[in-house]
Amino acid sequence: MDAAEFRKRGKEMVDYVADYLEKIDKRQVFPDVEPGYLRPLIPDCAPQDPESFEDVFKDIEKIIMPGVTHWHSPYFFAYFPAASSFPALLADILCGGIGCVGFSWAASPACTELETVVLDWLGKMINLPEEFLAGKDGQGGGVIQGSASEATLVSLLAARTKTIRRVQSEKPEVTEAEIMGRLVAYASDQAHSSVERAALISGVKIKSVPSDERFTVCGSALKKVLEEDKAAGLIPFFFCATLGTTPCCSFDKLLELGPLCNRENIWMHIDAAYAGSAFICPEFRHLLNGVEFADSFNFNPHKWLLVNFDCSAMWVKKRSDLIGAFKLEPLYLQHHHQESGLVTDYRHWQIPLGRRFRSLKLWFVLRMYGVTGLQEHIRKHVRLSHQFERLVLQDERFEICAEVILGLVCFRLKGSNELNKALLKTINDAKKIHLVPCHLREKFVLRFAICSRTVECAHVQFAWQHISQLATELLETWEPNQQQQQEQEQC
Amino acid sequence: MDAAEFRKRGKEMVDYVADYLEKIDKRQVFPDVEPGYLRPLIPDCAPQDPESFEDVFKDIEKIIMPGVTHWHSPYFFAYFPAASSFPALLADILCGGIGCVGFSWAASPACTELETVVLDWLGKMINLPEEFLAGKDGQGGGVIQGSASEATLVSLLAARTKTIRRVQSEKPEVTEAEIMGRLVAYASDQAHSSVERAALISGVKIKSVPSDERFTVCGSALKKVLEEDKAAGLIPFFFCATLGTTPCCSFDKLLELGPLCNRENIWMHIDAAYAGSAFICPEFRHLLNGVEFADSFNFNPHKWLLVNFDCSAMWVKKRSDLIGAFKLEPLYLQHHHQESGLVTDYRHWQIPLGRRFRSLKLWFVLRMYGVTGLQEHIRKHVRLSHQFERLVLQDERFEICAEVILGLVCFRLKGSNELNKALLKTINDAKKIHLVPCHLREKFVLRFAICSRTVECAHVQFAWQHISQLATELLETWEPNQQQQQEQEQC
Repeated sequence: MDAAEFRKRGKEMVDYVADYLEKIDKRQVFPDVEPGYLRPLIPDCAPQDPESFEDVFKDIEKIIMPGVTHWHSPYFFAYFPAASSFPALLADILCGGIGCVGFSWAASPACTELETVVLDWLGKMINLPEEFLAGKDGQGGGVIQGSASEATLVSLLAARTKTIRRVQSEKPEVTEAEIMGRLVAYASDQAHSSVERAALISGVKIKSVPSDERFTVCGSALKKVLEEDKAAGLIPFFFCATLGTTPCCSFDKLLELGPLCNRENIWMHIDAAYAGSAFICPEFRHLLNGVEFADSFNFNPHKWLLVNFDCSAMWVKKRSDLIGAFKLEPLYLQHHHQESGLVTDYRHWQIPLGRRFRSLKLWFVLRMYGVTGLQEHIRKHVRLSHQFERLVLQDERFEICAEVILGLVCFRLKGSNELNKALLKTINDAKKIHLVPCHLREKFVLRFAICSRTVECAHVQFAWQHISQLATELLETWEPNQQQQQEQEQC
Repeated sequence: MDAAEFRKRGKEMVDYVADYLEKIDKRQVFPDVEPGYLRPLIPDCAPQDPESFEDVFKDIEKIIMPGVTHWHSPYFFAYFPAASSFPALLADILCGGIGCVGFSWAASPACTELETVVLDWLGKMINLPEEFLAGKDGQGGGVIQGSASEATLVSLLAARTKTIRRVQSEKPEVTEAEIMGRLVAYASDQAHSSVERAALISGVKIKSVPSDERFTVCGSALKKVLEEDKAAGLIPFFFCATLGTTPCCSFDKLLELGPLCNRENIWMHIDAAYAGSAFICPEFRHLLNGVEFADSFNFNPHKWLLVNFDCSAMWVKKRSDLIGAFKLEPLYLQHHHQESGLVTDYRHWQIPLGRRFRSLKLWFVLRMYGVTGLQEHIRKHVRLSHQFERLVLQDERFEICAEVILGLVCFRLKGSNELNKALLKTINDAKKIHLVPCHLREKFVLRFAICSRTVECAHVQFAWQHISQLATELLETWEPNQQQQQEQEQC
């Protein structure tokens, strides 16, 4: 394919994507396919000779679309939102075209420098303390990671290295292996599984800190486990606080946890993967109070700030801590600007070596929406979740299971977990909307997350009526069974 | 921006990218900017109100392009190639439009299933042993990682978990921390820095195995270090063989190393990040002989197989080994198809949780080029590197520093490292072409890598004439200085 054909086909693809997104509400949100559906539809081997674009293009509707879960459908209320916007799509076309691999400043200065500056923009939008910004000669700064999981891992690794060095400087006779065996990381029992995974990867212990009745970790809960562990000879070194937990969007108490971590020489990382975008609205910024005690902070513009995946924004107070955990410098990656204070080699800030020009899409989105446009997006989602909450509360058969703070509503039928599992199954089997569940303590709970950029009141209204009707049908057949069960239990 | 405006602007962006790539040879390959150039060119903060697309668009040429290193210029001979092709760009537009996050089968069945099948295609193209393919019920299979660094890390982690479990089952009294402290990974002294980094992240020791005069690790070299380390009570568990090292594209001797690793219960991972693409040509496939002894294998279609970054293809013989190192299963990520043998949840195969629909671009490229089209691309690059090699060999002032096997030529002026550093500096300061250096033992060497999809004989010819002329100018001023130095040294 030459440039001339690319011009033609590229425009057709742009139209295809525009059509897809304009009419996405007409598609069934969750696909009908069964596992293994795709393999019989395509050949066993790559073709020997080139196929035409037309042949490939027609397979999109024939082979791909029947198996797509439509994350941008206004009937998609599962997981958390995956961001999508036209400015981000435009920037990604440019990113692909430039196609640089920005692992060092010299590998593409614009790629590195735009990232640093635009992360300062974003940091200012959420009023991050000055120490986290790169500025012209700051010790901190921001970086775009691929995912919050990577941000957590990178901060845990930085904390691990820093702690090993500190302990070894205090007690030179202790080996690194001995220290590793005594290190403990902590996170809420509501924290994302990626925190446990980061500890697993890094070869250190991790412990859950019990959250309270609001699914929040407070200072005293952390203090208690720290004291027990220190008494047992362990070395607490890392705490991952969550702002906006995945199950129910609860918030750990930074203002209690932060000073405790600082006193105990524990690196505090804040994972605000979903909730972080809301902090651009002054009315939600208080949820971030206490960030001044943190060593690193992360949230995902690719979740809720209209920047297509992947764009996970991470800031550290001391970039030297990150670099210290990673820096290895072979000659083919050195360049003569390396010693300058202005130069950032982002490969020392992340797990992979290569990186795309991802700051372009953040830059496009921030400029083409403006702060006010993005605030409107967040506020609309929060308004819609409260609309859904009110609808649930008006129906006595249902209960709300956690405080609705941002765009997530956790709800369930009053009754058994089995009943709620059955409700979720009927909802997802009907495929008019799509939800996923969570556990809150012993309760099986349905999560209703406002996701799509284009979701409106009417979609939420529809979703509720649909859920409510399915619940009515379910309860009609369910209650006798349940009564039978209860009678059996009483016998 | 609504869909109607996206149609218009998307087409303008497609044209911009087509223009950029068509006329990239007119741009200076390496930028003129100094560190810190970008910050003064843009505002301190994100705009409060939306800006127009025109405003953003005109900043591409004004702010971004002056700081871009043009990786796709036919005058770019640095690092290794970063792949780029029009079919891949088209697929990435589609990938952005669909915008699913394919962490599990249910999160988008097409995203998962296409990846599995297309990696079988690619595996067959390089004649990987059947055990590495997923097929309908295989124990192995392929996955797209973001980078070779991640593939190495993931395989090292799988090996670590497997070894810890094995040792603990043999000696239940030994703690995990003790085992961790005794684990050792190995790689060539020519291996990529990401291998050392993977060990650092995983908290295990790593040792370099000395390569021979051809920069190759042979079986006896590994055997020697293994015996020393086992005698010292260490536990060798992982060897990363390199096919196509970064400094000089040398190849470790798989047929000697593989059986040794198998005998010693050592996980053998093969990193063929650059060279792997060449194995689609029958005349280069012999370089992969011995892969049958490996546990995991990786190469980067985003380097040399015309699939834009990021697309790093990795295969394992036993997918359960990867999953065993990672699997954590919170309820919100469970789905009712989970137990089926046909279902793959790729989040258990990788470091991040989220993932884009990257198999689309691999699928588009394989189909629109066909195997023959991709073979032509590889063969052209290898032909051009041999053309450059011949030009170097015809000039008695220069020497070739390592066997030219694929698309990389390592060369230098006969003389001191200082002389060659000066030559590289004059080349890169002139900015007509761009190269990076490496060290081969004590020698400072220039790397000439055939990179661009559009590079032709004429560009290589031009590059050589330019280098040769700069060498002539340098030697005219250099020789007296050098003689002086030598005289001083003799005094």
